[in-house]
Amino acid sequence: MSKINLAIVGATGAVGREMLKTVEARKIPVNRLRLFASHRSVGMKLPYQGKDIEVEELSETSFERQDIDFALFSAGGSISSKFAPIAANNNCAVIDNSSAWRMKDDVPLVVPEVNPHDLRTHKGIIANPNCSTIQMVVVLKPIYDISPIQRVVVSTYQSVSGAGMRAMAELRSQTEAFLAEKEVETEKFPYQIAFNCIPHIDVFLENGYTKEEEKMVNETKKIMGDDTIGISATCVRVPVFVGHAESVNIQTKDAISVKKVRNVLQSAAGVKVIDNPDKNLYPLQIECAGLDDTFVGRIREDNTINNGLNCWIVSDNLKKGAALNAVQILELLINKKY
Amino acid sequence: MSKINLAIVGATGAVGREMLKTVEARKIPVNRLRLFASHRSVGMKLPYQGKDIEVEELSETSFERQDIDFALFSAGGSISSKFAPIAANNNCAVIDNSSAWRMKDDVPLVVPEVNPHDLRTHKGIIANPNCSTIQMVVVLKPIYDISPIQRVVVSTYQSVSGAGMRAMAELRSQTEAFLAEKEVETEKFPYQIAFNCIPHIDVFLENGYTKEEEKMVNETKKIMGDDTIGISATCVRVPVFVGHAESVNIQTKDAISVKKVRNVLQSAAGVKVIDNPDKNLYPLQIECAGLDDTFVGRIREDNTINNGLNCWIVSDNLKKGAALNAVQILELLINKKY
Repeated sequence: MSKINLAIVGATGAVGREMLKTVEARKIPVNRLRLFASHRSVGMKLPYQGKDIEVEELSETSFERQDIDFALFSAGGSISSKFAPIAANNNCAVIDNSSAWRMKDDVPLVVPEVNPHDLRTHKGIIANPNCSTIQMVVVLKPIYDISPIQRVVVSTYQSVSGAGMRAMAELRSQTEAFLAEKEVETEKFPYQIAFNCIPHIDVFLENGYTKEEEKMVNETKKIMGDDTIGISATCVRVPVFVGHAESVNIQTKDAISVKKVRNVLQSAAGVKVIDNPDKNLYPLQIECAGLDDTFVGRIREDNTINNGLNCWIVSDNLKKGAALNAVQILELLINKKY
Repeated sequence: MSKINLAIVGATGAVGREMLKTVEARKIPVNRLRLFASHRSVGMKLPYQGKDIEVEELSETSFERQDIDFALFSAGGSISSKFAPIAANNNCAVIDNSSAWRMKDDVPLVVPEVNPHDLRTHKGIIANPNCSTIQMVVVLKPIYDISPIQRVVVSTYQSVSGAGMRAMAELRSQTEAFLAEKEVETEKFPYQIAFNCIPHIDVFLENGYTKEEEKMVNETKKIMGDDTIGISATCVRVPVFVGHAESVNIQTKDAISVKKVRNVLQSAAGVKVIDNPDKNLYPLQIECAGLDDTFVGRIREDNTINNGLNCWIVSDNLKKGAALNAVQILELLINKKY
């Protein structure tokens, strides 16, 4: 396999750093690696394979020489909107972690365990889904393969790392201030997040839902390739550093026993079942942080409807929810496995 | 109105202390007040109307002289199972905050805004519902009065104070240890609660649900007086000191507009609507702690089903979720308003 030239755009952010670590950990065959960020981070060095790689400023000429094969973007929507097409026009395939391209018709939105085949039609830009969506569809897909899913009601418990490194610092500083009975300062979040839950992620839309909630609805349908699935989402930020949890209520078309669901998930790619109430075993955010898999437990029948099911899904939002999923897409592209 | 002789059993606990404060704040006409707790707390003094009241040990003879008219119990299920009948047999009406009596056929389970009339048949013991249930039914009832509710899917975000004062101390000490990179010690919770969510409150049952989840199902049906309501609950402990939040998905029999729901809730007793996404206004646990009302916001249509509705309900679990509701029941009994 020939080695690739790879760029990471937004390399100094929470997800960018995780992308770099993941590229190294998964032994992506990299010839030349370039790290891009804003002017602010120029000169910063990040470790890769025992060396320090210097961060460069992203500019309109960065992709000009057409010597970058692939780029992992995680620098926010406006950077992606502007620079992903520039990269793509210079023969660089972009895997973009922002929401800018996800719902465009000619941009595949891919979770490797669910819809790798959607990569076949890519035109240079591939979108990485929202963190909360990824961990949910990884669990929904194996169930869907037994019976179509008609409706999902999901409430999330999302960690602050989804809002970036400064948000993580804010949870820490607010917590320290609160315990010391000092004034709590708020910057990244609309309200105090320390010892509090905030039912508001991303901006509000006309219909009363947040954009984060809308993402879970639209992205799930696109990834699953089924517009008929009803998804009702409530997205909530909780005072946890890393790892998103989701309480998910599912209605399938056909009856499936809890035992069958557990069996199917046990053998599903990227999924680990932790589900033994007798031993107090269920997925936890603190235990899943740093791990690759999506964890599911508390699987139980919901007898208030036909073919109802409840479960609790947890994954590291920086890994499977962002960096790992992007690097897995990169692997599919490199190996042309789609 | 003649003054009553009142006892608080479990007076030194998180809810017991709140009961004492609430009795004082709401100017319950008390002649003689007695505070009972276990042997451990004997001699402790608690403030009431500028005086210190000494805590006595609860014993089988405490109610013998038949001079206590009413008792507020919050000392756990086994104390209530044993002592509530003793009190009731001695002409003392018991309002019990434990789960011991809630589902007994001849024990009314009362939320004053919802089913005060159920007090009519009481035989000396009245049960105070579970905290998560109370705040939910206070919001469900005004909606139910427009149209029967067919199904509710609820995921909770419950604060540690629901598990008592030692649990609150544990969240604090674990948080301090975590931030200082010291070992986190766990006692009251099955796992670390600092910077983590635990989908496990009370014990697990055969069917995979927890007892806390079962309480929300059974108690809601009993309070609402409608066994046909389907309730699917997932109860989760979050690292918040005081205040429970709930993400609630509701299906009514008939269509109701969001505007109508908001109007009805705005004029409902014990409910305050905080719902203005344009101004980032929605209920928050830190803002509702210490307040009497149940707060509801994020009211929006769920178009994945007929007559669907989502909302976010927050209340102080020690107040409306426990002490306040119990004292409100006491007021109804004193004033014979049922």
